[in-house]
Amino acid sequence: MSVSTFFCPSWVDVGAGVLNTLPDIVRPYGNKVFVVMDAFFANHPLKDRIIGLLEGFELEFYTRIQPNPRDNDIDDGALLCRDFGANSIVAIGGGSALDTAKAINIVATNGGGAWDYARRIGETPREITEPLLPLIAIPTTSGTGSEATRYSVITDHITHAKSTIKTDLNFPTRSLVDPDLTVSVPRKTTALTGIDAFAHCFESYIGTKANPFSEMFSLQGMKLFIESIERACEDGTDVEAREKMAMCSTLGGLSITHSATTLPHGIGQALSGVTDAPHGGSIAVCMPEVIRWTLPYGQKKFAEVACMFDPSLKSLPEEAQANALPDILDNLFTKIAGEKMTMRKYGMTEEKIPEVVHTAFYNYKGDLSRHPRVPTEEELTELIRKCL
Amino acid sequence: MSVSTFFCPSWVDVGAGVLNTLPDIVRPYGNKVFVVMDAFFANHPLKDRIIGLLEGFELEFYTRIQPNPRDNDIDDGALLCRDFGANSIVAIGGGSALDTAKAINIVATNGGGAWDYARRIGETPREITEPLLPLIAIPTTSGTGSEATRYSVITDHITHAKSTIKTDLNFPTRSLVDPDLTVSVPRKTTALTGIDAFAHCFESYIGTKANPFSEMFSLQGMKLFIESIERACEDGTDVEAREKMAMCSTLGGLSITHSATTLPHGIGQALSGVTDAPHGGSIAVCMPEVIRWTLPYGQKKFAEVACMFDPSLKSLPEEAQANALPDILDNLFTKIAGEKMTMRKYGMTEEKIPEVVHTAFYNYKGDLSRHPRVPTEEELTELIRKCL
Repeated sequence: MSVSTFFCPSWVDVGAGVLNTLPDIVRPYGNKVFVVMDAFFANHPLKDRIIGLLEGFELEFYTRIQPNPRDNDIDDGALLCRDFGANSIVAIGGGSALDTAKAINIVATNGGGAWDYARRIGETPREITEPLLPLIAIPTTSGTGSEATRYSVITDHITHAKSTIKTDLNFPTRSLVDPDLTVSVPRKTTALTGIDAFAHCFESYIGTKANPFSEMFSLQGMKLFIESIERACEDGTDVEAREKMAMCSTLGGLSITHSATTLPHGIGQALSGVTDAPHGGSIAVCMPEVIRWTLPYGQKKFAEVACMFDPSLKSLPEEAQANALPDILDNLFTKIAGEKMTMRKYGMTEEKIPEVVHTAFYNYKGDLSRHPRVPTEEELTELIRKCL
Repeated sequence: MSVSTFFCPSWVDVGAGVLNTLPDIVRPYGNKVFVVMDAFFANHPLKDRIIGLLEGFELEFYTRIQPNPRDNDIDDGALLCRDFGANSIVAIGGGSALDTAKAINIVATNGGGAWDYARRIGETPREITEPLLPLIAIPTTSGTGSEATRYSVITDHITHAKSTIKTDLNFPTRSLVDPDLTVSVPRKTTALTGIDAFAHCFESYIGTKANPFSEMFSLQGMKLFIESIERACEDGTDVEAREKMAMCSTLGGLSITHSATTLPHGIGQALSGVTDAPHGGSIAVCMPEVIRWTLPYGQKKFAEVACMFDPSLKSLPEEAQANALPDILDNLFTKIAGEKMTMRKYGMTEEKIPEVVHTAFYNYKGDLSRHPRVPTEEELTELIRKCL
């Protein structure tokens, strides 16, 4: 039985200025608002703006957020949230802030520690039995899509093992995706988070779990990426481009919610675990090569995406269209990031390949198995060598 | 502030055989299942199949459903549902069965009468304060899209006034869209319900409330309609075509959930109120003429849709592409229905035009106001005359 499922209960508002609706959204829940916010904003006008918007509410800020959210930071935040007696949680920042807030919500309401709820080989995640608090997600970058997913990625602070809490209760109650908040994001971050958003759409599209719902989100997200990423990188104040990228990011979240990421995320996340590669960069340095290796296994969809980037390809045979995609992406990623990204620049070496391969097979097997061409360990080793 | 909202909390499974998951879905809610089902199925194998699937559950069937659901049928059903002590409601049938069940759910849990909750000029609909029962929607035609909307259309049994209950609580908890259930739908019904599904996608696409979310649903829905409606009409057992139309119908629901219908539904529904025209037919007889009248106001989108139907148009100028759309639809509707549908065949006359115009302006003003060209009463009169 082949079933296509549509499900994302989050209410997502996308548009310049939607942040201003925040007080009306939290008011019905009660007076105490627990705000999870990137520490980066501690002395930033955005914090003052939130305080101004939520005047009259009792606020508690929590800012101990790391790029890979640690379970102990989450557990400490959860204690604080519970002691405070929060009526709602507002999460503001990049993917890490949103993922931290989602996990804090679970631990604050259901006890235990964040790691208990994560997926681990051979263990059943702890059950969530108590209702969560309403959570309002406000992304400040266009990339993660966490505002429309059931995931929070967390890392064990001792072993540095990475895992995911995956539950339908993790969908934010409301998401306010306000492109005005991304206007001050620097060019490089705009490029790398944008590549992540594109990757969510693209990988979900080519993956074996793709269905008519996910394909629809993927295609619309890729279309918006193509229309806007260069403009958003060249001129951060181009609000129209920022708005399209904000929408692209949300559509990326909807794409992975209805299908899932594939091999580029599998390699990229393993690479980020072994080196210091940023998430978007870790995907950019492997995606073109991954596509080359996958070409005959996904020709039709690669050809479609290539033609979206370059409509002049439409007169060529499908194979030629598909073959053009790796270079199209390679050139675009270099252009928007302002430099050629490589694994070596991120500290990757020949010697570290086995560790990346092992991590990919151990932690990101799902990404590998959903790819249209599933690699063996030997094939993955050779593929990563080509990316160096 | 321009906001694009994504929101549909229904969990929708589309696929041949998904009906078989029904017992697992209702079990957690409890043993008592209130089944709202078209009377048509009283001696139909589907009823036996439901009884078989829900063996061990306590069932109460309610089948007093009319094509335009009456408030008194709903109120009587609600009493029965409450007396029965239902734990969940299962709705099986066409749009009327689904809309009846949605309204029964509200009245059974919140008291009063169905009409109290409907939108009426000058009145505030009664507030829903008590939680509703879980509702599982199982459409047996591909048209209404009610499985993914917040609407139930109801009719006052005395005045025959028609109105809508519109609330976010009206989204089904789960929807099982099983194309196997549509295999026995006769050709004409397949065509007319299919036209309705297409109209949901198309009207939402051209309407002034369209946004990137609704457009995405609309485009995917229209693509599936184009790929499958002729096949589904020619050979009802073509399961692939039936599956595409089932998906098209759900996408139509998602389209109107995120945007809304426009002038063809405004005229069509008014026509159905004044004559006996079936819903899909009432739209088919006016849509081509409505498009002709609207051409310069929505040229770009009309051209896009025309090229989806006939890619050979792509070499022509946009105006020529758009101009081709009315005839494309007129010919297709005639072909799939097996006859040219006209307003006159449905009993419409010159003399009834004022009543249709009045009804459209009084009951379906929203459809009119969201259309890219908003008609005056004189213009609407002239337009309907052209459709005769």
